[in-house]
Amino acid sequence: MKPSLEDTLLSAIRTIPDYPKPGILFRDITTLLGNARAFRRAVDELVHPYAGSKIDKIAGIEARGFILGGAIAHQLSSGFIPIRKKGKLPHETVRVAYSLEYGLDEMEMHADAVEPGEKVILVDDLIATGGTAEAAVRLLRQMGADIVAACFVIDLPDLGGRARLEGLGVDVHTLIAFEGD
Amino acid sequence: MKPSLEDTLLSAIRTIPDYPKPGILFRDITTLLGNARAFRRAVDELVHPYAGSKIDKIAGIEARGFILGGAIAHQLSSGFIPIRKKGKLPHETVRVAYSLEYGLDEMEMHADAVEPGEKVILVDDLIATGGTAEAAVRLLRQMGADIVAACFVIDLPDLGGRARLEGLGVDVHTLIAFEGD
Repeated sequence: MKPSLEDTLLSAIRTIPDYPKPGILFRDITTLLGNARAFRRAVDELVHPYAGSKIDKIAGIEARGFILGGAIAHQLSSGFIPIRKKGKLPHETVRVAYSLEYGLDEMEMHADAVEPGEKVILVDDLIATGGTAEAAVRLLRQMGADIVAACFVIDLPDLGGRARLEGLGVDVHTLIAFEGD
Repeated sequence: MKPSLEDTLLSAIRTIPDYPKPGILFRDITTLLGNARAFRRAVDELVHPYAGSKIDKIAGIEARGFILGGAIAHQLSSGFIPIRKKGKLPHETVRVAYSLEYGLDEMEMHADAVEPGEKVILVDDLIATGGTAEAAVRLLRQMGADIVAACFVIDLPDLGGRARLEGLGVDVHTLIAFEGD
């Protein structure tokens, strides 16, 4: 019998206590990425609702969102947009400041990365407070993107990120949730 | 008529003069990634020689190597190993120092990311001097990986990276070259 999606993914994720600081349970997705079956299944399940749709671009959030986003873009025959920490992109950018779980930062996207009206899916490995994802949504919408969905392998619902994105009118698609994080 | 691989990729790459410093012609692959047809073609051509082979893992070099490497891992049904700047990985790592085109740095890989004898393909967007790629090869071999090939979209052959990797006994697979860079 094929193991359930939840069992496949949960058993492949490593939990690291007190990282990056005391009291945080860090959900380490690198063990899932390194497990060929779990990685393939995660990508296929993230792609599934959009198979056959015309998705112009996948926007991946640096850095783990690049790994999943690259695979999803190839699978959907979409282009890929990197959303990066400030100072990493070589051409003209648009920038937004945001607060994240462990501090403050800025993120950037190339100003010509998306055309108005293009259908875009945002991808990252995990949604926690949603600060990074909200900033990415704002950047993409500022340039006229039509955000079809935001996709994550892991949801930490107690931290409110899903509700925050839904409050912005963004459909959120996640594969597994850790409650109580 | 289907445009040649070279035309498709060359026309999708943006060249930025004097970035990140005077005299450097920066080959910006973000325009290729954002072009659905060019991105798909680049991934498919990188994958092609290994289709049907058993490749255990794709090792992607942070950050642009994550985008291509994620897509290649999914396509080959391989796992994915992130090779990152120091301090970014949450579990026990192995580390190597290296000199790169614009300075000095260290890179890390999780110590349990690869099993001895596993077949691994290294992926990045571009090979210039090969400093980063050589460091990644050393990390992977230190943990017993069997490096099947190193794959890059762009080769800057005048900077010697291809020859450097070949001197380490690594097969190098690239799609296009810019001479005189």
